[in-house]
Amino acid sequence: MERLTTAEAETIRDAAKAKILEMGAKMSVAVVDERGDLITMVRVDGAPWRTPRICQAKAVASAAFGRSSKDMLEMAQTPVMRGLMAMENGRMIPGQGALPVFKGDELVGAVGGSGGTAQQDEDAARAGIQAVAGLTTVD
Amino acid sequence: MERLTTAEAETIRDAAKAKILEMGAKMSVAVVDERGDLITMVRVDGAPWRTPRICQAKAVASAAFGRSSKDMLEMAQTPVMRGLMAMENGRMIPGQGALPVFKGDELVGAVGGSGGTAQQDEDAARAGIQAVAGLTTVD
Amino acid sequence: MERLTTAEAETIRDAAKAKILEMGAKMSVAVVDERGDLITMVRVDGAPWRTPRICQAKAVASAAFGRSSKDMLEMAQTPVMRGLMAMENGRMIPGQGALPVFKGDELVGAVGGSGGTAQQDEDAARAGIQAVAGLTTVD
Amino acid sequence: MERLTTAEAETIRDAAKAKILEMGAKMSVAVVDERGDLITMVRVDGAPWRTPRICQAKAVASAAFGRSSKDMLEMAQTPVMRGLMAMENGRMIPGQGALPVFKGDELVGAVGGSGGTAQQDEDAARAGIQAVAGLTTVD
Repeated sequence: MERLTTAEAETIRDAAKAKILEMGAKMSVAVVDERGDLITMVRVDGAPWRTPRICQAKAVASAAFGRSSKDMLEMAQTPVMRGLMAMENGRMIPGQGALPVFKGDELVGAVGGSGGTAQQDEDAARAGIQAVAGLTTVD
Repeated sequence: MERLTTAEAETIRDAAKAKILEMGAKMSVAVVDERGDLITMVRVDGAPWRTPRICQAKAVASAAFGRSSKDMLEMAQTPVMRGLMAMENGRMIPGQGALPVFKGDELVGAVGGSGGTAQQDEDAARAGIQAVAGLTTVD
Repeated sequence: MERLTTAEAETIRDAAKAKILEMGAKMSVAVVDERGDLITMVRVDGAPWRTPRICQAKAVASAAFGRSSKDMLEMAQTPVMRGLMAMENGRMIPGQGALPVFKGDELVGAVGGSGGTAQQDEDAARAGIQAVAGLTTVD
Repeated sequence: MERLTTAEAETIRDAAKAKILEMGAKMSVAVVDERGDLITMVRVDGAPWRTPRICQAKAVASAAFGRSSKDMLEMAQTPVMRGLMAMENGRMIPGQGALPVFKGDELVGAVGGSGGTAQQDEDAARAGIQAVAGLTTVD
């Protein structure tokens, strides 16, 4: 079974943060393992207090289903997603801005952004994942 | 009052699991009593962590109303169902993939699947129930 | 990284159940992975509805800390355990009757019993773990 | 009003992580602002899933009161602390291993560790704070 290492997660975090600063956004970004537990995260100066919670919750949803942000949005009103959101006390948000992370065929985690536009949130997550050779995500 | 015995629930579980493996799916299946409490469940190798929670929550919804998966979906947006989902902290999911179990006219439990397509989830539940003589479910 | 397979968890479950019947207890037993998510469980005829919930919650606590039942009890009043219990909405119970499961040096899950005396709960968990060659637990 | 910057929090995080690796511990460390919201955190390879939650919750308690770990423990059974823990659903843990962070006289945040001994948790937090000129903590 493959795992996302701390070193890989740190590279994702720092590359996503560089993208955030380049875009001039006020965001947080979180990297979670395949079970949705935090490995690392960072909030840039000026990003609202809500963003650490939201970026993590988006990453949890993406890791739980191993699916793209667009699919997450489509699932948001399903009974399954509403049930899981309640079981997790809201700590699972099926919104755009998070992407699953794969090593080969295996889901190893997810990256979520919050605080920018939905597209910026996703762009930061993608930039982070692309910074690590051997990791892939969905389109 | 009729009851689902542990032996019957185990036969349901193992027959549902055989169907899951035959379909090549990565699923969990749960058997609950008429009150929605677990009698037995199993998760096959490689099935995501969300599936034990979801299959149980679907079975809870099915047992609570003694109705088919399709009816469950139709009820998902009703105030009654939304209220119950909140009371149970999400641990009741009115989604396809669970079937009620009857002995004669009496509701004695439900079986829920999660991790496959909605049809696979229901097929596994049905295969389980059909493995025990004297138990019936809805179409 | 090692994992507890479904086949191993089923052997644990069935051996624990055999021990429960031998003791004449009315119990449930749950096998969870290292993250506390259910792999399989069973409740014997006549065991109270509370027992599936409690045996799982004990196993969650044991898996979270990789420690023995006795240690769990000693930790029950610590702020850390009280905080985690609240975060998990009570679904983590530091009580006697659960044991961690190791493959070599690696924690791969836990087994929890509920419904008997504290000693019977632990004895059932231990009998289950001892039924699988290559798995170990604490004294 | 003074604030802990992202750059300062990152220095704290990385210095605390260096101390964790030096001690050979399997820990997580979190840096929160004066409100208890995450700025950054990291979990080292092999640290249990419970540690990201616990280190953050300890830091929340320390930031909420601006006090030392020892004081936190003494407060654990007070009605105020028990009430706050419940309001926060457990996400505030008054346990040793977190230290408040000051700029001059002003409380600007806290650092919490989890996964080592209580002393290691606190040592990692202290090493992090000491890595930034101009920041102080309590003895």
